[in-house]
Amino acid sequence: MLRCAVAGTELTPLRRGQNLILNMADHGYTVCAFNRTVSKVDTFLANEAKGKSIVGAHSVEEFVSKLKRPRRVMLLVQAGKAVDDWIETLLPLLEAGDIIIDGGNSHFPDSNRRTKYLASKGIRFVGSGVSGGEEGARYGPSLMPGGHEDAWPHIKDIFQSIAAKSEGEACCEWVGDEGAGHYVKMVHNGIEYGDMQLICEAYDIMKRGLGMSSKEIGDTFAKWNQGVLDSFLIEITRDILYFNDDDGTPLVDKILDKAGQKGTGKWTAVNALDLGMPVTLIAEAVLARCLSGIKDERIKASTKLEFVGRANTFEGNKEQFLDDLEQALYASKIISYAQGFMLMQEAAREYNWKLNKPSIALMWRGGCIIRSVFLKDITAAYRKNPDLENLLFDDFFNKAIHKAQPGWRDVVAKAALLGIPTPAFSTALSWFDGYRTKDLPANLLQAQRDYFGAHTFRIKPEAANAKYPEGKDIHVNWTGRGGNVSASTYQV
Amino acid sequence: MLRCAVAGTELTPLRRGQNLILNMADHGYTVCAFNRTVSKVDTFLANEAKGKSIVGAHSVEEFVSKLKRPRRVMLLVQAGKAVDDWIETLLPLLEAGDIIIDGGNSHFPDSNRRTKYLASKGIRFVGSGVSGGEEGARYGPSLMPGGHEDAWPHIKDIFQSIAAKSEGEACCEWVGDEGAGHYVKMVHNGIEYGDMQLICEAYDIMKRGLGMSSKEIGDTFAKWNQGVLDSFLIEITRDILYFNDDDGTPLVDKILDKAGQKGTGKWTAVNALDLGMPVTLIAEAVLARCLSGIKDERIKASTKLEFVGRANTFEGNKEQFLDDLEQALYASKIISYAQGFMLMQEAAREYNWKLNKPSIALMWRGGCIIRSVFLKDITAAYRKNPDLENLLFDDFFNKAIHKAQPGWRDVVAKAALLGIPTPAFSTALSWFDGYRTKDLPANLLQAQRDYFGAHTFRIKPEAANAKYPEGKDIHVNWTGRGGNVSASTYQV
Repeated sequence: MLRCAVAGTELTPLRRGQNLILNMADHGYTVCAFNRTVSKVDTFLANEAKGKSIVGAHSVEEFVSKLKRPRRVMLLVQAGKAVDDWIETLLPLLEAGDIIIDGGNSHFPDSNRRTKYLASKGIRFVGSGVSGGEEGARYGPSLMPGGHEDAWPHIKDIFQSIAAKSEGEACCEWVGDEGAGHYVKMVHNGIEYGDMQLICEAYDIMKRGLGMSSKEIGDTFAKWNQGVLDSFLIEITRDILYFNDDDGTPLVDKILDKAGQKGTGKWTAVNALDLGMPVTLIAEAVLARCLSGIKDERIKASTKLEFVGRANTFEGNKEQFLDDLEQALYASKIISYAQGFMLMQEAAREYNWKLNKPSIALMWRGGCIIRSVFLKDITAAYRKNPDLENLLFDDFFNKAIHKAQPGWRDVVAKAALLGIPTPAFSTALSWFDGYRTKDLPANLLQAQRDYFGAHTFRIKPEAANAKYPEGKDIHVNWTGRGGNVSASTYQV
Repeated sequence: MLRCAVAGTELTPLRRGQNLILNMADHGYTVCAFNRTVSKVDTFLANEAKGKSIVGAHSVEEFVSKLKRPRRVMLLVQAGKAVDDWIETLLPLLEAGDIIIDGGNSHFPDSNRRTKYLASKGIRFVGSGVSGGEEGARYGPSLMPGGHEDAWPHIKDIFQSIAAKSEGEACCEWVGDEGAGHYVKMVHNGIEYGDMQLICEAYDIMKRGLGMSSKEIGDTFAKWNQGVLDSFLIEITRDILYFNDDDGTPLVDKILDKAGQKGTGKWTAVNALDLGMPVTLIAEAVLARCLSGIKDERIKASTKLEFVGRANTFEGNKEQFLDDLEQALYASKIISYAQGFMLMQEAAREYNWKLNKPSIALMWRGGCIIRSVFLKDITAAYRKNPDLENLLFDDFFNKAIHKAQPGWRDVVAKAALLGIPTPAFSTALSWFDGYRTKDLPANLLQAQRDYFGAHTFRIKPEAANAKYPEGKDIHVNWTGRGGNVSASTYQV
């Protein structure tokens, strides 16, 4: 009987499963590996796993029989049907109290369902976000486990030992009930979409707006990586821009500009719409990928739609503008994270989860794709005040967003004038200007809805009186005509 | 036996059902009215329906028995369960070939399902969008029927006679199979969200950016209503801005700025995400309503987040700027409709529907909330070329968008500099600038995805060679380290 055993894995081509097993073995755990294609197990044992505390199994029965109770079986298989199939395969072999951990990119409603279903069978289910790509899995991923809380004491040590560390703290904490772990991973991925889109917009402005070379742009990202934007994604962007093909020209210029997606960004945007939360930046980032996808139509459009404007080349101080651009990227990023935390806060309320905001920020600090110095500051903000209503109300970020504003505004304005698309920079600024506005023009919108559809409106508290009391649904006869119907005479 | 009989209705407080019945009676049809609350039928017959060719029924059995075959039963009940309940109530009483028409705001997947289900029972189902509010229902709605095509010859005359007319043509045509009618109505509503948001942004810029009074803003909308923006929504906006409360001040200023929604705009945005189509303007319009909804938090934010910028008052020629604003609104509207038609085109492909684009534009020309001169031009564009790939490729709109560009850019830039939120104007411009771009920065994004997740990329056809062939999924070892894993050394 193994002292500790965890992974049943598909050993996917991306090797996330293999790498997690190696990572566990490095930390002193004995791990049993299994795959339906048994030859993959043997190949793994004979190569990467050789000499390590890793054993294999050639059948599910053998795999389960080798595990100490409560058994801890971790699945790293494709999200969706494969997870359910594995659960059904394992169920007859497991005993009450055993633990099934799904480490794939499952959609959180599935994890809600599986937690309940397995609890009814006496099995404890954990849905865990795992971020950091292949290398993360090998040397320290960000882990976001949620589900049946009774399982946590049994997996805490191993999860925290294999997780990335940030200043000595493991980037792994219990997230919350049911699908909360996969939910937080989903929002993480949505934020990742946003971060990448923002970097692309900055790159595009430098490339087409300022006419800079890939090397010069790489130098700029290198410089930014020393400041407030210091992060994994900025670092790899620098590396990518420096990476030349055999002919000595930047490889990035040759890469087809059609962005792929795996769906988690879309899930975040759809969930935001479902919860009625204004998570605009992630939505724009997802839709920007969609626009990139219709390249054939864009090629055609590029021959039919010309730039027309009152200015067509950049004028001004380039160094100042690059500083402004850094601030625009920073400020937009603050907005995106503020939106993401608003969404998670609303989800916790809606789904009745306890979500620990300081822990979430900590989990994202290291190991995962969006790891950054920035997330240290977010962790600090939520540790200082776990009930912080909005990230923008924290002193540090409040100062930062005020400092960034002038440059951010200039970048958005200049991009519009020069014809460079900035959907994420622009929506971040519009959202900020809307969010800080006490009286938005939605009063007119409510009047329109009442005019044409008798949808009613409410009165501002400060304008309430006997005729229009506060908190009542009011309908007005806008046209002075008709009795029972709102009316208009508009004729085309 | 009645010569013709159609409506079984809930007679909702909004009276859409009653008004449709009155409209049918006005056009020479004899209609039978029914409601579960029988007293409502009697009240209706004794009042609005008195002296018209309208009869009532006091039971479902009586209602059905009064209808000529094939029976045409139109439901105007709340979308969702109520429709299914009514279908089950009617089914035992109907005969093969009878027709059930759902005139509510049903979600199109429900109409897909109901068409198939009822076909299996020998009943022909029609899901029809009905737009125009109460007055539209009474004097000429826009009708968008889809479903079981065999039903169309039996309802065509009555539908086209009660529908709005635009230059003598009925704003009603057969839309397509299954839920196609409700789908087109959904996109109509999404576009309506967009139009309203654009008007609100123009209003906000005039109010807060230029410091204009409601009367002055009303005058501007009145002027715009004589030009390219001539439309129902601009007309009622003018009326609303002119509408004073008893104390002589504009009522609109007193209306609470929290926008409500019924969900159809959200459905459109979610469907766009599902189909991977970049319908950014409707998405932003929906999210702007969400932002308006969190008023308490905005009030708090307004005390903590101040405007900072290099300019804080409008400078320049105000008359010129108002002309620019008209162009910005017009151009953004063109983009929104172009996006909407792209979405419907993709839906037709995805769901295997035949959608008739000239007919859709015609249906929206009159009767509905978004009716406008603008839709005449769209109808003309699609009649000239029913296979037009994109509205922006039509000569008329191509010229219009080029003419509008300089002003549009200035408005977006000035709003950013002045701190007025313009999520819809901005996203429209960014989308236009992205759409007309052959090479977007998504090349960098693909490089990032390959760097951290080995997601692979493709090569631009013009850069393809033996090492990097066209159409192949390529993975590069960006770091020069490691064998099987992409790698990075980033440490926080």
